[in-house]
Amino acid sequence: MPRSNDQPAAGPPADLGRVSVSDGLKAAAAAVDAELDRLIPPAQGLHARALEAMRYAVFVGGKRLRPYLTLAGSALFGVPEPRALRAAAAIEALHTYSLVHDDLPCMDDDDLRRGQPTTHRQFDEATAVLAGDGLLTLAFEILAAPPTHPSGDVRARLVSRLALAAGAEGMIGGQMIDMLSAERAYGEAEIIQLQQLKTGALFEFAAEAGPLLAEAGEDDLARLRRFARDLGLAFQIADDLIDVTGASETAGKTVGKDAAQGKATLVSIYGVDEARREAKRLAHSAADALSPYGRVADELRSLPFFLLDRAA
Amino acid sequence: MPRSNDQPAAGPPADLGRVSVSDGLKAAAAAVDAELDRLIPPAQGLHARALEAMRYAVFVGGKRLRPYLTLAGSALFGVPEPRALRAAAAIEALHTYSLVHDDLPCMDDDDLRRGQPTTHRQFDEATAVLAGDGLLTLAFEILAAPPTHPSGDVRARLVSRLALAAGAEGMIGGQMIDMLSAERAYGEAEIIQLQQLKTGALFEFAAEAGPLLAEAGEDDLARLRRFARDLGLAFQIADDLIDVTGASETAGKTVGKDAAQGKATLVSIYGVDEARREAKRLAHSAADALSPYGRVADELRSLPFFLLDRAA
Repeated sequence: MPRSNDQPAAGPPADLGRVSVSDGLKAAAAAVDAELDRLIPPAQGLHARALEAMRYAVFVGGKRLRPYLTLAGSALFGVPEPRALRAAAAIEALHTYSLVHDDLPCMDDDDLRRGQPTTHRQFDEATAVLAGDGLLTLAFEILAAPPTHPSGDVRARLVSRLALAAGAEGMIGGQMIDMLSAERAYGEAEIIQLQQLKTGALFEFAAEAGPLLAEAGEDDLARLRRFARDLGLAFQIADDLIDVTGASETAGKTVGKDAAQGKATLVSIYGVDEARREAKRLAHSAADALSPYGRVADELRSLPFFLLDRAA
Repeated sequence: MPRSNDQPAAGPPADLGRVSVSDGLKAAAAAVDAELDRLIPPAQGLHARALEAMRYAVFVGGKRLRPYLTLAGSALFGVPEPRALRAAAAIEALHTYSLVHDDLPCMDDDDLRRGQPTTHRQFDEATAVLAGDGLLTLAFEILAAPPTHPSGDVRARLVSRLALAAGAEGMIGGQMIDMLSAERAYGEAEIIQLQQLKTGALFEFAAEAGPLLAEAGEDDLARLRRFARDLGLAFQIADDLIDVTGASETAGKTVGKDAAQGKATLVSIYGVDEARREAKRLAHSAADALSPYGRVADELRSLPFFLLDRAA
């Protein structure tokens, strides 16, 4: 259980009150969408169907939260925007692959994603598997290519970190634990591990991509990772709250699925009120991690509170 | 149609008669299996099932033909064996991912692979999708890590080339074309394109990984790619011949599937005899590509003829 005597303030810190995350998210989404449009052009030829499905999956939309993390983290360290945009696009491609595969009938069997037919419903299962494989591969292709950074060491390091975050000891491991959750009674520790792998690992990479591109020091990398870890868990609790309390229109996907599938979540363990308090505590902890950067980090520091508002 | 007036000799060139590819393949398989065993250790913890399935899929066996190409190509250019082995293991991990996903019910729906239950039959579909995703991700993780090569530029270049070979304009594109082949009447050109993407692209990368690790020149890369391109097509024709004429014991997988699924192959278009002749022509063309390297390339040059013998 979260420490109940560690009550955070009700809202964001007063100095963050007027920062608009919403505008930043919109600008980041527009920029990363333009980059993805360049990186996954409409295809011709016999193999085009896989690329069409990749484009479909990517352009169904979404908040572009991970690319935003990368762009905001890059701005904090003065990374040239074209490089940051390539890393952001790679991360969104990788995130989209995970959604396409997670939605498959043999996984979560979802028909809707962001209010639109999932890729296997719009195309077919084989095409969805291949489109996911293609997006995963594309993420590494983007990071490894010279326009992402002049230094091969930096590019190889980006590939390494993303592969670790996404692999069987990261996001894939988290999805594996999630697939087993319907038949096992997970407790708090298991669910936190699940979320940390399934969501947290890629959040961490998205946040540290900026300092990695800037060749910043280990202290900076650690701060951005800590920010992302707490943010990711807060975000996941918010998502679980929407699954319990939200409407399909807001969520853009099928709601009530976790309960229907008998999956425990932090919300089912804590209860709604305690889950909200824990999410707020995590939001404050995330914001604190960035305090060394002062006012230039204000927009990023208000992101956790913005995300919690979705689930209020 | 292949040029029928371009009749190659019946067997391999006389100077290759005594070279044993068989021993080389066995040694390469043992070495790469030991490397894969280190790189995918038995796992503990909640997420272990995905790693177990990755190990299962990899250690079901196989000829390790692609790792052999990488090791033999590396030896030709004096690449230290530990580096060559990492590249070879990455390529085999990537090849195995493609088999795991291609075998899925929504793709080729195969129950047997190398005489053993396919990964989704041994585990379940969700685990097989995740194991494939994990192996694909692992391939890039291995190539990008410093032990593969001291130069980040070389590591990033390996990642780039593999991503292009494996992606939607490479192997994934080939599988997409293959999935559509049952409902479309492909001709020779389409089938050659299919094979070039589905099999040839990864063969080419496996062969050029050695010169890439050696930072050899473009001429060397082009020669090794040409060797692999002709080898890959010859190998695919041999595989199609086994599908028509072979026994399940030899093939280790379900035979007669292409015909049952109404898929055209070069064998169904050329006929068995003409297909054998074309495969031999390609084998000679492949061997010729390596003639500048003299006797040290003899074992690699005899590989195409060794592979054709399987289908004789």
